[in-house]
Amino acid sequence: MDMITFEEAYRIVMNSVFETDNEIVPFTMSAGRILAEDIICEMEMPPFNRSAVDGYACHRKDLYDKMEVVEVIAAGQVPSKDVLKNQCSKIMTGAIVPDGCDIVFMVEESENLQNGKIRFTGIEPKLNISYKGEDVRTGDVVLKKTRFIKPQDIAIMASFGHIDVKVKKMPMVGVLSTGDELVEPSVVPDLSKIRNSNAYQLLSQVKRAGGEGMYYGIAPDDEEVTFALIRKAIDENDIVLLTGGVSMGDFDFVPSVLRRAEVKILFDRVNVQPGKPTTFGVHSKAVVFGLPGNPVSSFIQFETLIRPFICRMMGHNWNPGRQNLPIAKRYERKSSDRMGWVPVLITKNSEVKAVDFHGSAHLAALAEADGIIAIKTGTNIIEKGEIVSVRQI
Amino acid sequence: MDMITFEEAYRIVMNSVFETDNEIVPFTMSAGRILAEDIICEMEMPPFNRSAVDGYACHRKDLYDKMEVVEVIAAGQVPSKDVLKNQCSKIMTGAIVPDGCDIVFMVEESENLQNGKIRFTGIEPKLNISYKGEDVRTGDVVLKKTRFIKPQDIAIMASFGHIDVKVKKMPMVGVLSTGDELVEPSVVPDLSKIRNSNAYQLLSQVKRAGGEGMYYGIAPDDEEVTFALIRKAIDENDIVLLTGGVSMGDFDFVPSVLRRAEVKILFDRVNVQPGKPTTFGVHSKAVVFGLPGNPVSSFIQFETLIRPFICRMMGHNWNPGRQNLPIAKRYERKSSDRMGWVPVLITKNSEVKAVDFHGSAHLAALAEADGIIAIKTGTNIIEKGEIVSVRQI
Repeated sequence: MDMITFEEAYRIVMNSVFETDNEIVPFTMSAGRILAEDIICEMEMPPFNRSAVDGYACHRKDLYDKMEVVEVIAAGQVPSKDVLKNQCSKIMTGAIVPDGCDIVFMVEESENLQNGKIRFTGIEPKLNISYKGEDVRTGDVVLKKTRFIKPQDIAIMASFGHIDVKVKKMPMVGVLSTGDELVEPSVVPDLSKIRNSNAYQLLSQVKRAGGEGMYYGIAPDDEEVTFALIRKAIDENDIVLLTGGVSMGDFDFVPSVLRRAEVKILFDRVNVQPGKPTTFGVHSKAVVFGLPGNPVSSFIQFETLIRPFICRMMGHNWNPGRQNLPIAKRYERKSSDRMGWVPVLITKNSEVKAVDFHGSAHLAALAEADGIIAIKTGTNIIEKGEIVSVRQI
Repeated sequence: MDMITFEEAYRIVMNSVFETDNEIVPFTMSAGRILAEDIICEMEMPPFNRSAVDGYACHRKDLYDKMEVVEVIAAGQVPSKDVLKNQCSKIMTGAIVPDGCDIVFMVEESENLQNGKIRFTGIEPKLNISYKGEDVRTGDVVLKKTRFIKPQDIAIMASFGHIDVKVKKMPMVGVLSTGDELVEPSVVPDLSKIRNSNAYQLLSQVKRAGGEGMYYGIAPDDEEVTFALIRKAIDENDIVLLTGGVSMGDFDFVPSVLRRAEVKILFDRVNVQPGKPTTFGVHSKAVVFGLPGNPVSSFIQFETLIRPFICRMMGHNWNPGRQNLPIAKRYERKSSDRMGWVPVLITKNSEVKAVDFHGSAHLAALAEADGIIAIKTGTNIIEKGEIVSVRQI
């Protein structure tokens, strides 16, 4: 199978998306989920002519006369008195402006006269009325399908009494590590072994991406056990992530196991660094990504291929945060035969610096990085001052 | 009490920070929390000279001779044979390079000869060895205290077996609404009433900020009931958020209730729009923010004053995401006597446009906005093309 470009890999992955079902959640639990319905306003907002201040409601033509106060209208009360010529009602913020009144002057711009009457003392009168329906009208779409729900949207749902919200189900993502060299983080590794960091990183990335992760442990270098675990993971999930076992080693039988499990492999090498030995296949029940065993490669492949896939499964076109900033000093790489992702940090002066990076197992480089930048196949130098697009990680 | 500037308000709020305690959580649960310890590397990384590829380990001086294969070293195995002159060991990615070998050439650059020997067929040999300790050395600080923990940090904790992680406790935040005009979102409001949207928005903002929210319901316009609820909320939380009841209306007795509850009020008006009637006070047990009843005001005050406060309580200096971009068309506001926060969106061409905004109850404006920009007191025009700093919301 030929090695393909990152762009081709992205296209193939995105063409394999199948959407998750909808489910109903209480609006209070919906932040961070993807909205699966248009939310349509079923009432006018504000629902009545609403006073924007604490003050006195009256007729504008009476503004420069002394006025008699006929009642006090608290927020939440319905006005009970008509306001006639040279009359006003004291009114609180959020209360209904009595019919016919076309201005509310503020308490701070009023004077209580000795005879109990009120006088406007301001200069430039503002109306201070929020008119019924001026913010939103019945039938307006206030929140659109496929939206990532934020706290400000929760307020809108509350306002309209939209307490049951249709959201996309979170894709189920099974994570399985392979390799006899791995031990769990709680174990002190013998010489020649290392702790499994990849799976836990992936589970945390899955959660951040909006998916629901499930861990299937470390498959030993045994084809039958690996086959059984992969079958189980495919059966129980929408996406299966395998880490390790996809290089060219004698024990890298993941590709053959996948074929046996009826996974149709669409690519098995991507011309990108880090992350070349990335495999992608489809099964009638799920898709499978075979990720490199190196944690930096695995991290970057997840952010650039799998995170967009998870979001698109929920109908959402995710855009990573980006900043366009200049490179602080000339960057050079030895070989330019692959597209590269370079971990970078952003300095206090808003310049971009490549972090010291020893290769795809160098986890500490990611901790230091604020983002990654892409460098094209064929390019091995970025000159000082060149503007690059830093993709947040 | 005098009205103060936003900058003064920010300074007063930040000077009132008290830090939360530490707690231990499993590393798998620590993403999104604030790290309360330096994580120090207790082993070399890589822990041994590690092969970066699948290939053959040998002595560089033998590279152009035919070599006998003495063993196959899988990842996770300890080499059992010495590699002598004109010998090599087949080795898998991640396995220990045998002592004395100073190069691993790739399977792809090798030829199996008929006599069972191996020959290097490449041109420019790379070493393909990750040396013990080249990524991280014992005693290095790999993750620093006060850091916001991300998925990539989880991998580091896993690698070092740092399975119990010291993080900052999440500040407890009580939210109490006031006002007889409010009903809960599940209720159909009578004319003159509106649904309580503020509290649910705040609870969602608290969660996003890393705090733990608790809802105390709607306090009616009754001083005794309000007093009892505020006392209870102060008793049970680090931060109490009150919404509504802080204007100049006849039923706005929140300030007097706060004094009675032994809250020392440090400011009660901020020269900012929206959000002028914002109150802040300190109690021996908690701090109290009195927020305007309008949901846009309340949202923005939370993001600009309370979210940084919550993060600082956990020792973390939070920086909102920002982008510096040009204004798409001239922006003008009527009055410039207050500092303003203007909801804006970012167009496909990376220009900034103010969203249609009717005032501080206009929730739909927030849903449309990608961020807010600050406009200084005394300034009422931003010219087309001027660069503004968009703060993500």
